Amino acid sequence: MKKLLNDPADVVVEALVGMAAAHPDHLRVDLDHKLVLRAGAPVSGKVALVSGGGSGHEPLHGGFVGRGMLDAACAGEVFTSPVPDQILAATTAVDGGAGVLHIVKNYTGDVMNFEMAAELAADSGVQVEAVVTDDDVAVQDSLYTAGRRGVGVTVLLEKIVGAAAEEGQDLAACAELARRVNAQGRSMGIALTSCTVPAAGQPTFELADDEMEIGIGIHGEPGRSTEKIAPARDVAARLVEPVVSDLGLERGESVLAFVNGMGGTPLLELYVMYGEVARLLEEAGITVARSLVGNYITSLEMAGCSVTLLRVDEEMVRLWDAPVDTPGLRWGG
Amino acid sequence: MKKLLNDPADVVVEALVGMAAAHPDHLRVDLDHKLVLRAGAPVSGKVALVSGGGSGHEPLHGGFVGRGMLDAACAGEVFTSPVPDQILAATTAVDGGAGVLHIVKNYTGDVMNFEMAAELAADSGVQVEAVVTDDDVAVQDSLYTAGRRGVGVTVLLEKIVGAAAEEGQDLAACAELARRVNAQGRSMGIALTSCTVPAAGQPTFELADDEMEIGIGIHGEPGRSTEKIAPARDVAARLVEPVVSDLGLERGESVLAFVNGMGGTPLLELYVMYGEVARLLEEAGITVARSLVGNYITSLEMAGCSVTLLRVDEEMVRLWDAPVDTPGLRWGG
Repeated sequence: MKKLLNDPADVVVEALVGMAAAHPDHLRVDLDHKLVLRAGAPVSGKVALVSGGGSGHEPLHGGFVGRGMLDAACAGEVFTSPVPDQILAATTAVDGGAGVLHIVKNYTGDVMNFEMAAELAADSGVQVEAVVTDDDVAVQDSLYTAGRRGVGVTVLLEKIVGAAAEEGQDLAACAELARRVNAQGRSMGIALTSCTVPAAGQPTFELADDEMEIGIGIHGEPGRSTEKIAPARDVAARLVEPVVSDLGLERGESVLAFVNGMGGTPLLELYVMYGEVARLLEEAGITVARSLVGNYITSLEMAGCSVTLLRVDEEMVRLWDAPVDTPGLRWGG
Repeated sequence: MKKLLNDPADVVVEALVGMAAAHPDHLRVDLDHKLVLRAGAPVSGKVALVSGGGSGHEPLHGGFVGRGMLDAACAGEVFTSPVPDQILAATTAVDGGAGVLHIVKNYTGDVMNFEMAAELAADSGVQVEAVVTDDDVAVQDSLYTAGRRGVGVTVLLEKIVGAAAEEGQDLAACAELARRVNAQGRSMGIALTSCTVPAAGQPTFELADDEMEIGIGIHGEPGRSTEKIAPARDVAARLVEPVVSDLGLERGESVLAFVNGMGGTPLLELYVMYGEVARLLEEAGITVARSLVGNYITSLEMAGCSVTLLRVDEEMVRLWDAPVDTPGLRWGG
């Protein structure tokens, strides 16, 4: 295993130490609970957004803590759900009196542990709503998941709902918006290589030199099929078509188009892929209202990418454009 | 070779097509000359910044085109210098009447071709100054380079001098500032794996499963030594010490600390490395005034990182903090 770390058992805590040192204006960390907390949280009167999950998907979620996005992120061990105590600590730490929205990717452990934490938080008087993302069209059930997996739409949801919370929308409105975003977004991914979990020390799965995995999960879970590698234009079609079809996108509709790198694919190739995705959408008469290209929800050093399409309305576009100031996404005033 | 592309010969142009589609508010591309041009360029009365080099280092340079940074970037083939005609076209396209600053990484072909383009531009009445970056302390001469190689400091220079040009500093002042930044910055890198140039189809160099290359260049040029892989804290020391020593940094001085990913190393590990770098600097009594962590000057999918330290003064910090709006670096109003 070739990685820049010390003891694999310490990688999450040591990365949090590095994050805190690198971003003192944006965040602080709670090393006991493995939390990333927005600097200045709790923000009185604002709905707080709490997310989290296994580590190894950075910048998701800790890199999205800051003004206009998350108030806290709970870092599990690599590819392992955070525990209820962590999530409870995050929830009580950032509640500003207007309630807390839990944003949970649909993996069995995450859903269970966030539910347990929400109950405990409610017992101590914190109002909690939860939204579960399940946008991956590749497979219905999978290792780790009953139902569809939560992937790329989580990034878009955290940005859009983060902006709504920042402008003062209440907990019910934020939860309703979050469910609307999840309902309007779909994703599918592809891997060219595996990744290696530090504690495991060897690749999660095997792919031959001429193979790719279509419909890969963000923990290397099996997808729809293992196939011979193909040109970018074919790979793009294999990702865009099921997403467009599942979402029922029709000519004249508008989307936010997101090409996400899994971690080990150069930006040069992600732009090639985005060019192919944009061309396919144009041919289908679908307007790209906004786009995002880069490594935002990764799988350690896996080579590959995912495509997420989010059918947007005017409010979603307005909230997408609103200022955001986090280590992983920053724009606006 | 496992890559998301079509014909390897088309990768640069196809990536430019994708960039233009993804960032219509920031930039446009000239596919004939393989240029990324700031939207709205030329900006009348502003010094224009033009950089470029081989592709494969994204987001450098095309991803740094936009308000507060570059006016144009010339994309060579992967790891290959852009040609004089390209650079001339970029220079004349963005000259707003206040002259053009060429920012050139110290590789023999880049230096020669930028010089030739500068002469041709001068012949057609455009005032050009050039600054060459040569911040890599690893080796004195190398494959591609006479003298030291230009690496991480280029990113910092493009941001700081871009801000100076944006606030109206003239060509002489921008060039002087650029030389000051280069003189105050040093870098060193390490690779855990090679990368594969698309047109070559096989890894640039070989490293055994338990080896790393200390002092690697951004094209996979040999460094100081091939060694057994080591914990992050030891790798950090092997990078920080020569940089601190070469720069003559002393207790009480302030730096901008930049931990850059080579492309294939997860952000999780880059933060572990940044934590180690920050600790070493603290132990040495050196203050981190600002920091940057992420993939900014990459070597395709190479696993590894580099450390750049820039001794900063008040003006550099002020210009670093100034708003920037490019695909690769964005902050402020």
